Amino acid sequence: MTTNEKALLLHEEWKGKLEIISKAKVKSREDLALAYTPGVAEPCKVIAKNPEAAYQYTVKSNTIAVVSDGSAVLGLGNIGPLAAMPVMEGKAVLFKEFGGINAIPICLDTQDTEEIIKTVVNIAPAFGGINLEDISAPRCFEIEERLKELLDIPVFHDDQHGTAIVVLAGIINALKVTGKTKEECTVVVNGAGSAGIAITKLLLTYGFTHITMCDRAGILAKGMEGLNWMQEKMMDVTNLEGKQGSLADAMKGTDVFVGVSAPGIVTEEMVASMNPDAILFAMANPVPEILPDLAKAAGAKVVGTGRSDFPNQVNNVVVFPGIFKGALEGRASAITEEMKLAAAAAIAGLVAPSDLNENNILPEAFDPRVAAAVSQAVKDHIRQ
Amino acid sequence: MTTNEKALLLHEEWKGKLEIISKAKVKSREDLALAYTPGVAEPCKVIAKNPEAAYQYTVKSNTIAVVSDGSAVLGLGNIGPLAAMPVMEGKAVLFKEFGGINAIPICLDTQDTEEIIKTVVNIAPAFGGINLEDISAPRCFEIEERLKELLDIPVFHDDQHGTAIVVLAGIINALKVTGKTKEECTVVVNGAGSAGIAITKLLLTYGFTHITMCDRAGILAKGMEGLNWMQEKMMDVTNLEGKQGSLADAMKGTDVFVGVSAPGIVTEEMVASMNPDAILFAMANPVPEILPDLAKAAGAKVVGTGRSDFPNQVNNVVVFPGIFKGALEGRASAITEEMKLAAAAAIAGLVAPSDLNENNILPEAFDPRVAAAVSQAVKDHIRQ
Repeated sequence: MTTNEKALLLHEEWKGKLEIISKAKVKSREDLALAYTPGVAEPCKVIAKNPEAAYQYTVKSNTIAVVSDGSAVLGLGNIGPLAAMPVMEGKAVLFKEFGGINAIPICLDTQDTEEIIKTVVNIAPAFGGINLEDISAPRCFEIEERLKELLDIPVFHDDQHGTAIVVLAGIINALKVTGKTKEECTVVVNGAGSAGIAITKLLLTYGFTHITMCDRAGILAKGMEGLNWMQEKMMDVTNLEGKQGSLADAMKGTDVFVGVSAPGIVTEEMVASMNPDAILFAMANPVPEILPDLAKAAGAKVVGTGRSDFPNQVNNVVVFPGIFKGALEGRASAITEEMKLAAAAAIAGLVAPSDLNENNILPEAFDPRVAAAVSQAVKDHIRQ
Repeated sequence: MTTNEKALLLHEEWKGKLEIISKAKVKSREDLALAYTPGVAEPCKVIAKNPEAAYQYTVKSNTIAVVSDGSAVLGLGNIGPLAAMPVMEGKAVLFKEFGGINAIPICLDTQDTEEIIKTVVNIAPAFGGINLEDISAPRCFEIEERLKELLDIPVFHDDQHGTAIVVLAGIINALKVTGKTKEECTVVVNGAGSAGIAITKLLLTYGFTHITMCDRAGILAKGMEGLNWMQEKMMDVTNLEGKQGSLADAMKGTDVFVGVSAPGIVTEEMVASMNPDAILFAMANPVPEILPDLAKAAGAKVVGTGRSDFPNQVNNVVVFPGIFKGALEGRASAITEEMKLAAAAAIAGLVAPSDLNENNILPEAFDPRVAAAVSQAVKDHIRQ
């Protein structure tokens, strides 16, 4: 049986991968009086006086909503909220298994930006955080930004920031392996959707200065037609030289390639045209932009992909459980840029200097130290 | 330590009475590939082609939202969504413990009717049903009616229908005990909020014809000032004689009193003025409209209250878990009047004729047969 066939059978067996259980057992009238009326009125009254006490007495302290409108699900595209459910449940599974966090899928029957924002604001009281998932660009940028303004709980679009943080962690270690520095390196990011833009932003925040973004049309440059509002905004901080041309043109003489694009679109010639000891993150799924062997043969030093059967898997499961764990435990009201940088540094730091090499720049998804390290990094950067 | 003190301590220990757990354990790369990518794409694709398959592969099959805006919580009033959380979690606990249903509190940061409706419609894809809770009248009527029109999953306002169903069950058995018939009986319902109105409607559907509603202002009659739109509507089907006066006036010569009102407002004189072998449901909490001993001394035959320390507790925990269990298992798209009548009959039927007497007209909250019996009654009345 293939993995896909087995997965379908298992999903039928599970009938939903999540279960909501009660910590309060109700076997007697006394139990009922404590968990429900009349006893339950006591915590209600305390919270009515002091809203902050909700974190003391309710699930808000450790429960997040995994919110999607089903508009950009995995590689499947706009399959809608119902069909997105198995993915959102899977995400909730990972939150629990890797971070100990209660997460519930909220799949929205609307793809209207204003309605999504209003709906999430309206349901926010029950939750300690909002993880946005698989919402298409550029709507995802506005939805996240507006929700961050409107809510006093952490809002995090994992497709953007989870990916950006783990890529930065990998690059931090790849720089060590290659002896390159962020100040000198030039970077090409191919794919200008939610992940590509978030990666670019975080690399800029980290201190990279020469980044060129590309998409299907080639190099993105100021004044180009067909850019969305966020891509236009990115033209103020990337490709400052105003380069034009194809992806191949962009890659000539650069040090780092980050691909969140399409299978097989990077050739050996393109890699050979990069600077010596090039770093490639070829994260198209399931087939990378270029296979690691080919990239290495063409001169690359470090190659990461999204796959677990090659070295250097770039997997945001090392990020999001720890991010929310730290934010919830520390009662952060938002996930800040400082926290993202600290999380990336913490992930990079989990690879001991003696273990660090071109084939080992990132911790394993199942490394039990990861969530605790990321969570601590987040907590250390909560502004009081 | 009092129950209230103990309840507060326990709530602090629980830090939320619910936990979301994963049925899919993720201990290896293979587990990850089955519960998440790439395997998860399979059920997504099946659901994208056939939305009904969501019931086969996701939590929708057995998960409901307990939705409140915190506007009418227990006896506490409009304490808002955060302070309502302990009650909604408690309700979710009861859904699980009595009906095996996954329920999650959704406490809304809005009390605007249109926004509530839109928000619930928007979050509906993830859920198999919506239990509305502690939303103030008359907004609760419009919210429920509109949601029933807009959604193809069961929507049930428990404060209305849960209460109405268990009261009808009690009355069915009280009629047997007293030898009265629904055709001859006259009924007074005191309290014209969500529960009072729903009880009145269900008793009319069941076949009672002479019902008079009262509230603080006394008998409700057509053309009275200060009635809300739903109360006005009720004047077309109740108090057809156009009686006016006080609660005391209303109760003279009636057979059944149903109180969802305020402690101690029914006197012995009022009970004595009722027909012989009167039936009283005095459900004000925590102190009933009249204490059972006093009512009986004044001539009542059957007295039920909301309390577990008197005979005949009227507790809607015998209703809502079974209602949703049946609706979810049978894939009902709505809870119909037929299902409500069948549920009441099923609950009444759980008291064996040999056990039926004036002090035993309703099954116990902890009677393990209840949820199965109610659920079966609901399933038997699903229209195909």
